[in-house]
Amino acid sequence: MLFTNLMSVDEARERLLSRVRQFGRDDVESVPLELAHGRVLAEDISSEIDIPHYSRAAMDGYAVRSADVSGASRTNPVILRLGEQARWVHTGDAVPEGFDAVVKVEDTEEFDGLVAVYKPVRKYENIGLAGEDLRAGDRIAEKGTLLRAHHLALLRSAGVEEVEVFRRPRVLVIPTGDELVRPGERLVPGKVYESNGIMISSYLKEWGASPEVTDIVPDSRDELESILNLADSYDLVVTTGGTSVGKRDIIYPVLGDIGEVLFRGISLRPGKPTVGAVVGSTPVLALPGFPAACVASAYLLLRPAIRRMLHVNGDVSFFAKLSDSVYSKPGFTSFVRLSVDFETMLARPVSSYGSGILSSITKANCYTIIDENTEVVEAGEMVRVYPL
Amino acid sequence: MLFTNLMSVDEARERLLSRVRQFGRDDVESVPLELAHGRVLAEDISSEIDIPHYSRAAMDGYAVRSADVSGASRTNPVILRLGEQARWVHTGDAVPEGFDAVVKVEDTEEFDGLVAVYKPVRKYENIGLAGEDLRAGDRIAEKGTLLRAHHLALLRSAGVEEVEVFRRPRVLVIPTGDELVRPGERLVPGKVYESNGIMISSYLKEWGASPEVTDIVPDSRDELESILNLADSYDLVVTTGGTSVGKRDIIYPVLGDIGEVLFRGISLRPGKPTVGAVVGSTPVLALPGFPAACVASAYLLLRPAIRRMLHVNGDVSFFAKLSDSVYSKPGFTSFVRLSVDFETMLARPVSSYGSGILSSITKANCYTIIDENTEVVEAGEMVRVYPL
Repeated sequence: MLFTNLMSVDEARERLLSRVRQFGRDDVESVPLELAHGRVLAEDISSEIDIPHYSRAAMDGYAVRSADVSGASRTNPVILRLGEQARWVHTGDAVPEGFDAVVKVEDTEEFDGLVAVYKPVRKYENIGLAGEDLRAGDRIAEKGTLLRAHHLALLRSAGVEEVEVFRRPRVLVIPTGDELVRPGERLVPGKVYESNGIMISSYLKEWGASPEVTDIVPDSRDELESILNLADSYDLVVTTGGTSVGKRDIIYPVLGDIGEVLFRGISLRPGKPTVGAVVGSTPVLALPGFPAACVASAYLLLRPAIRRMLHVNGDVSFFAKLSDSVYSKPGFTSFVRLSVDFETMLARPVSSYGSGILSSITKANCYTIIDENTEVVEAGEMVRVYPL
Repeated sequence: MLFTNLMSVDEARERLLSRVRQFGRDDVESVPLELAHGRVLAEDISSEIDIPHYSRAAMDGYAVRSADVSGASRTNPVILRLGEQARWVHTGDAVPEGFDAVVKVEDTEEFDGLVAVYKPVRKYENIGLAGEDLRAGDRIAEKGTLLRAHHLALLRSAGVEEVEVFRRPRVLVIPTGDELVRPGERLVPGKVYESNGIMISSYLKEWGASPEVTDIVPDSRDELESILNLADSYDLVVTTGGTSVGKRDIIYPVLGDIGEVLFRGISLRPGKPTVGAVVGSTPVLALPGFPAACVASAYLLLRPAIRRMLHVNGDVSFFAKLSDSVYSKPGFTSFVRLSVDFETMLARPVSSYGSGILSSITKANCYTIIDENTEVVEAGEMVRVYPL
């Protein structure tokens, strides 16, 4: 009845990810660039044109032939005929055929159809050459790129009007538990407001998925089973609660009956009672009901699953100095909430080993991971932290 | 005709921010918690209930009186009468009146209406006391909090159903320039696709604002003036392009005519030709047209303006080691794009001092600031970096 043979976090993640299908050609939708912000690119895109696509003046002034003005100086200006030997250009204008440099307006004087040039210029000086930013054929952005403002600007500069992005993974979120009540209902001892549904679905949105939260499912094997029969219509199913080993904890028995269990219990603190399974061909991740445990499992297992579907790689992390020593149970990976002061880069562990302590999460802005072979990280040590 | 007396970035920001109105009671909207993700809280919220609101079992087992079992051991168990001296509780159940601890199920055995207890428990052991997470009256979240998934979960746990958030700042984005063409139009030398509109509006969305992009405005004083007359309907107006000192650069003259100019030209590289003004009572920020200069000014001036409106404080930054020396023009603040490798925390400056080089921004994931008194930051030095 107790957890035995907890699986390491790394192995559990690997097992889960091996059953998560990376999106392919059938999971693509075409969207206008205006709607592509925050979406994940499903194709490599190269520029079809040089950027800039013509050689352009980088300054307001006169296009000249550099050889004509090589001897120019303030005391001994070179006088050019306007039109034939010098042409006015605004910044960004095409440099006219036959000219190879631009003299800044402040180094010139114009009078009676003539231009006095007071300073020499090198060949191509003050010219932005065609293809200087990007050449035709150069890669603009790769499959798996999370499209930010500057990607859209570069794509737009290259004349791109629509891009293929991955559709958002459809995730069904099922909060379970007889103790849960809906907002607005009366609270009596033994009952708590259901809060994991809104939390997990909000994280899923941040991570690029499209979540759907079911009504609260009581601790009934039949009800859970019937809702899990919907799994086939989703890319992933997440349940919260009911993963422990109590008499009411029905997730594992049901998943064992109707699916294949990948792991049951992982050596994560908080987050131990996490179950992974596959129902039909859909991965099911059963997260603990206690909020802080739920967050830890979600960051370490759910987020990588969504990112794998979308081909997203790379992650922001950095170093901060621990203000206090942190102890970790041997054999367990610890998910430690931290409040990092970015002025000083000091990371304060946010109290509470209790997995129910949600307020610790809202006080934290980062987390760090203590691996299973480490029992203590001393105050003053630098740790790698990840933004929450 | 040239820029004279460039203003420092800090002073320009201060002048701009002093004219940006912080949102108040009239700028608030009430939204259900389900729609509050990513919004900025307009009120301090305290919990009206203890969380948990009752003392609950932290384990599956039997609620007992700790005094009754003080002598219990494996060899000499204490036998309790079920109902009267011991009551079964699931994790999360209310601890029944008169009981003060929970014995884990694995330290017990039940038979014939009796429970054998094999291990003593301290008072309150395996009990989550009422108010352990938060007490009634404790602050859950403050005005200016950007609501993330875990804030919503804590608010939901406290029974909150709706929150007051600041409305999104309305920002009008006006791309200007005769050289600009719309996507889909034919490109001829001297013309480029307009790309700052989609870039700035996407950044504005990321920063919590609600942008509206106008059609391209040509370099016509009349047309610019007539569109700037709409300024009163917006919290902020942003123009791009036309801020330099060429004959076609009309932003400054128009702003001078119809508004109050706060600064014209700042000592930022790239980003020098940035103009700040107020038209009616609406701040107008005129960003350079060259994309990398536009990004630099947007991060250093526009983003703080939006955050000020919304009362958002605090910013993520951290340290990374420069892979190559970076040079900065004396008297200028440099906005240096960096590609940070998060494995090694090595920050590689992304080439190009050219302000037109947009591809440098898409290669970067962070930036650093070199202040006006620094001419070089050597390879190997640690610099403070900000995520892009």
